[in-house]
Amino acid sequence: MPTTLKEFETVFPNLVNDVLDHCRQYGLPTNALEWFEKNAKHNTVGGKCNRGMSVVDTTSILLGHSLSQDEYFHAASLGWMVELLQAFFLVSDDIMDASKTRRGNPCWYLMPDVGMIAINDAFMLEGSIYVLLKKYFRSHKSYVDLLELFHETTFQTELGQTCDLLTAPEDHVDLDNFSMEKYTFIVIFKTAFYSFYLPVALAMHYCNVATEKNLKQAKDILIPMGEYFQIQDDYLDNFADPETLGKIGTDIQDNKCSWLINQALQRASLEQRKVLEENYGRKDSECEKKVKVVFDELDLKAVYQKYEEERVAELRKLIDQVDESEGLKKQVFEEFLRKIYKRSK
Amino acid sequence: MPTTLKEFETVFPNLVNDVLDHCRQYGLPTNALEWFEKNAKHNTVGGKCNRGMSVVDTTSILLGHSLSQDEYFHAASLGWMVELLQAFFLVSDDIMDASKTRRGNPCWYLMPDVGMIAINDAFMLEGSIYVLLKKYFRSHKSYVDLLELFHETTFQTELGQTCDLLTAPEDHVDLDNFSMEKYTFIVIFKTAFYSFYLPVALAMHYCNVATEKNLKQAKDILIPMGEYFQIQDDYLDNFADPETLGKIGTDIQDNKCSWLINQALQRASLEQRKVLEENYGRKDSECEKKVKVVFDELDLKAVYQKYEEERVAELRKLIDQVDESEGLKKQVFEEFLRKIYKRSK
Repeated sequence: MPTTLKEFETVFPNLVNDVLDHCRQYGLPTNALEWFEKNAKHNTVGGKCNRGMSVVDTTSILLGHSLSQDEYFHAASLGWMVELLQAFFLVSDDIMDASKTRRGNPCWYLMPDVGMIAINDAFMLEGSIYVLLKKYFRSHKSYVDLLELFHETTFQTELGQTCDLLTAPEDHVDLDNFSMEKYTFIVIFKTAFYSFYLPVALAMHYCNVATEKNLKQAKDILIPMGEYFQIQDDYLDNFADPETLGKIGTDIQDNKCSWLINQALQRASLEQRKVLEENYGRKDSECEKKVKVVFDELDLKAVYQKYEEERVAELRKLIDQVDESEGLKKQVFEEFLRKIYKRSK
Repeated sequence: MPTTLKEFETVFPNLVNDVLDHCRQYGLPTNALEWFEKNAKHNTVGGKCNRGMSVVDTTSILLGHSLSQDEYFHAASLGWMVELLQAFFLVSDDIMDASKTRRGNPCWYLMPDVGMIAINDAFMLEGSIYVLLKKYFRSHKSYVDLLELFHETTFQTELGQTCDLLTAPEDHVDLDNFSMEKYTFIVIFKTAFYSFYLPVALAMHYCNVATEKNLKQAKDILIPMGEYFQIQDDYLDNFADPETLGKIGTDIQDNKCSWLINQALQRASLEQRKVLEENYGRKDSECEKKVKVVFDELDLKAVYQKYEEERVAELRKLIDQVDESEGLKKQVFEEFLRKIYKRSK
């Protein structure tokens, strides 16, 4: 049975207390302790926690049994570290993108009395990962691998963000900057590594099945799956019912280097390209409508549906070929795919 | 012979190339590679590099001989990691403090086309440390200790920054917030750990003399020495000749929780306290002058000089008591003290 959000969330207060205890031992003044607690809770809790929970579910599949209390706590701790890493990225991305809301609330840096302190708050979320790893995994035989995995994934995500920021600056629209090559780099580095590969690799290390061969097999499936997930996200931003999606898509107005604009650029006539150039990335709903017309003329909905079927067929083939002899399980990937195939939100 | 800045700086381009090679292997697009190179050079090179060079000098003292080319390179690499860590802090502190200049240039976030991308650039500087540690120290027997030392020092500095930001917000003056207790916490955590303890602890690990006893002896001397260094800094900000100091002090106008204002608050009459409350932290040179008058009335120059003599006597006593039986050397600390005692800039 997959874990529930409710069960997963019961672990987090323990972890916040661990980090608070660590800070108390240094003599951090009370107002700073309270600030950190508020930062950690506001920015880490309240999402769907799919990434974090997938560490728990993967662990359970790899071990082949329901988790004991101790196993659940340790797997969930690793899961919360993925959520802390994401919180570190989201708090800082929101400042860099000048975003206004996150999960239905004002972004952290826009909350009263926060402002640019949010930058240091983001650092503290990242730093908490290593406090927790040391507390709970210092004697695990994969401790160094866990540290290096977090370092590498963090760096990869930052490279993806660098490329994204340089390709699609908020204030300067230039569609010549976009390309499917850059798109693919951004998506794999900014999203796929930390959202898909990291949770599974953590569970594999925890379960002592992280052989070189198994890690490679996992990466070769999860990176294309993460790419597919982000392409879906880009598709839904424009084509999903906002009621179902739970938000109104803003990629066109935000000048995002999305899958749809890249597909459109590959297919547009000179006339259509002109419309895109004059209207993409403008904070104006009339401009947005004109871009949407071109997307419809090019039938990007059908282009996406064809892409989805092909990509899912490929992923199923890859999963089918997984060698389970060193303890990896096809079911890990089947579960991931089941959760995202034809999702509508 | 202590190393020179010129010699130390010859190592850095190799390290930037190592990180660039690492990024190239991921297929990072060219414009992002160039961006990282510019970020790394602009923000890491150009300072005095006292922290970084002290890793080299400490290594030479601990080994008891002039360094071979290989030893120099490894010690200097660790030194540059301290400089990268500092660059990560400075780039982000400048945004948080809304600073205008750094080392005589505009702050990185104020440079053309940078803006809030500077936040991600700061992350990349931090991330580079772990790329380099993995490349050059993965097989060193203290690799885990080096990783944990960087994690812990980073977290400590972030705690110091949290406390500093909450105690002295840029836009809200309230001298009731200040206290010598908070001052001491901020100084030790925000400055002393990464500037004094970290370089020596790195050299000790590199030279395989980082026993628990030696690390404790080093910490017990270097933390108070770092505190003394920052108090000196605060003193010089107000009392040094700007020509000699190379900059004009701005602590009073910037509402800094400095040693001088905390000493003044402990000694001020009700009338003097009123003057401080009405004039401290105002962006106004007339207000600044009135604060300076109170500092002079309270003879803070003499208070500082008394403090300095007492603190230096204590440090000399501590250094004299160092047990060298496990490979630590008094000379390490004597060199540090020699460089900072009665400095005028």
